[in-house]
Amino acid sequence: MDIAGALRRIRPLAWETPVVPLDLPGAPPTHVKLESLQHTGSFKVRGAANRLLKLDARQRGRGVVAASSGNHGRAVAEVAARLGIPATVCVPDWVDPVKLRAIDAAAARVVRAGPGYDHAEERAAELAAMGEIALVHPFDDLDVIEGQGTVGLEVAARLPGVEEVIVPLSGGGLVAGIGLAVRERGVRVVAVSARRASVMAQSLERGRPVQLPEEETVASALSGGIGLGNRFSFALCGQVIDEHVVVAEADIRSAVRRAFRQCRLVVEGGGAVGLAALWSGRYRPRGRAAVIVTGGNIDRRLLVPVLHDSAHPRDHDSHRPDLIGR
Amino acid sequence: MDIAGALRRIRPLAWETPVVPLDLPGAPPTHVKLESLQHTGSFKVRGAANRLLKLDARQRGRGVVAASSGNHGRAVAEVAARLGIPATVCVPDWVDPVKLRAIDAAAARVVRAGPGYDHAEERAAELAAMGEIALVHPFDDLDVIEGQGTVGLEVAARLPGVEEVIVPLSGGGLVAGIGLAVRERGVRVVAVSARRASVMAQSLERGRPVQLPEEETVASALSGGIGLGNRFSFALCGQVIDEHVVVAEADIRSAVRRAFRQCRLVVEGGGAVGLAALWSGRYRPRGRAAVIVTGGNIDRRLLVPVLHDSAHPRDHDSHRPDLIGR
Repeated sequence: MDIAGALRRIRPLAWETPVVPLDLPGAPPTHVKLESLQHTGSFKVRGAANRLLKLDARQRGRGVVAASSGNHGRAVAEVAARLGIPATVCVPDWVDPVKLRAIDAAAARVVRAGPGYDHAEERAAELAAMGEIALVHPFDDLDVIEGQGTVGLEVAARLPGVEEVIVPLSGGGLVAGIGLAVRERGVRVVAVSARRASVMAQSLERGRPVQLPEEETVASALSGGIGLGNRFSFALCGQVIDEHVVVAEADIRSAVRRAFRQCRLVVEGGGAVGLAALWSGRYRPRGRAAVIVTGGNIDRRLLVPVLHDSAHPRDHDSHRPDLIGR
Repeated sequence: MDIAGALRRIRPLAWETPVVPLDLPGAPPTHVKLESLQHTGSFKVRGAANRLLKLDARQRGRGVVAASSGNHGRAVAEVAARLGIPATVCVPDWVDPVKLRAIDAAAARVVRAGPGYDHAEERAAELAAMGEIALVHPFDDLDVIEGQGTVGLEVAARLPGVEEVIVPLSGGGLVAGIGLAVRERGVRVVAVSARRASVMAQSLERGRPVQLPEEETVASALSGGIGLGNRFSFALCGQVIDEHVVVAEADIRSAVRRAFRQCRLVVEGGGAVGLAALWSGRYRPRGRAAVIVTGGNIDRRLLVPVLHDSAHPRDHDSHRPDLIGR
């Protein structure tokens, strides 16, 4: 795995995103890396760019297909458009409209595959087999994992003294990539799952990939299974994760609201679980920490009700400034 | 004026804010500097920190007073709190609730001075004279201007090839400071006024400070006069501004909406006038440009209606990605 090579390869298709301080009273200095300010609105463009750039000319001509809850699909669609590769994206019916419009705008073919994420995955696999075209898996692919790992290299470059990274966990591509990028530097990896999208967490606990019914969650970007035949991301997550944290729906909604009010950032539920772990008190950093905000693609029709949620006990101090220089 | 000295002085009370690319088809490479991600939600903390750090021990003990439409008051309140200086902030009745709560949270004394910004200014001057305490003027003060100029140095450091800066114009402190910081490097200064808050623009046109009735505007941070007895900012703006652009309310509302939808940023009206000049087509950069997004302190009760504004012709392409790597 050559993550430094991936970083060179994917620039300028994927930006270096900003890192800003976050004040957590009593905690070591903590920073936030804002993949929500990535041009596609999430980190997913890194893995997609790395995978597509490694395709040969024949594969590029045939096109690519991907299954996605939205962010990976948007990333594949936009990278494919930039490279002139035809792309098909299979999505579940509940895909966020903001993500769907972006996939459409990038001129990808969209296939609404059914009520669940797993339907999208099945449909993408069928299309790939039928047309002999490359499947760009959202997480269980070494090129994708290598691309996502570039987040870790950027964190280490900007924050040379960082001791732990706090990373949203879903299919495990980002956690695996970041872990491979930073573990040999002695950086601890803290993975955060949404309770209603915790297939990987439960699989790791049981020592094998498990299947669970899909639950509705504000962190929809984290929904979906990891595949009973998972090849890479399950094993790699088992190797690199030092600690697990699980956050509840109320923690996530509160974090989305607090990111908006105090940090002036639009963050989607799945992107906010790291902040939710910190702000809820479910996790306290033990050293200088970087939390990855993975995405910000949320429709205003979903965001506005969250902003109007009735006052939550944790919001009592919500107008004390949180982001503060050190 | 020692802006480099100010930059050393104000760190860590004021952050270096992120710079991200902005795609403008057909235009030279353009970047955005996000003072909306400053910890107080606007650039104003730079001038406030520089001014307060230059006070002597006796002045610090007596405290400070400021007039503000909100952002400057929040900045003064938070810097004063960090330095243990008592602060009083005079605000107009229409102050944004987000800004007011932040001033309160920083334990400053708040004086609601009347229906207009000019009432706040008069009241602050009275309190300063009565108590022999330092008035921290929001723009017509050389220490404040020196502090705001640090934005220009950060832009030049991050974007060595920048040829023009596009800066919101109100009382002129930021424009004057940035101009003094970058003009000798041959960088053009483009100032952008909101049509309903264009006292400085009209004063410069007539060659002397003028007074105008205050108008309601979504760019409330830019409201208020420049003072008929203006000492510094009027003359300095006359020296440093190369070009003026005026944007309308609809341009600003559209820019706030587009920043939210496409860039996942919460930007207040006054902070968005530079983006409004670009996105409305009222200004086209002639060289590599940096646009300053000056602040993001906007209450959701003001923002949500702007997000729901009926479709505007300029929004037709609003889901084409705008922020894109080069």
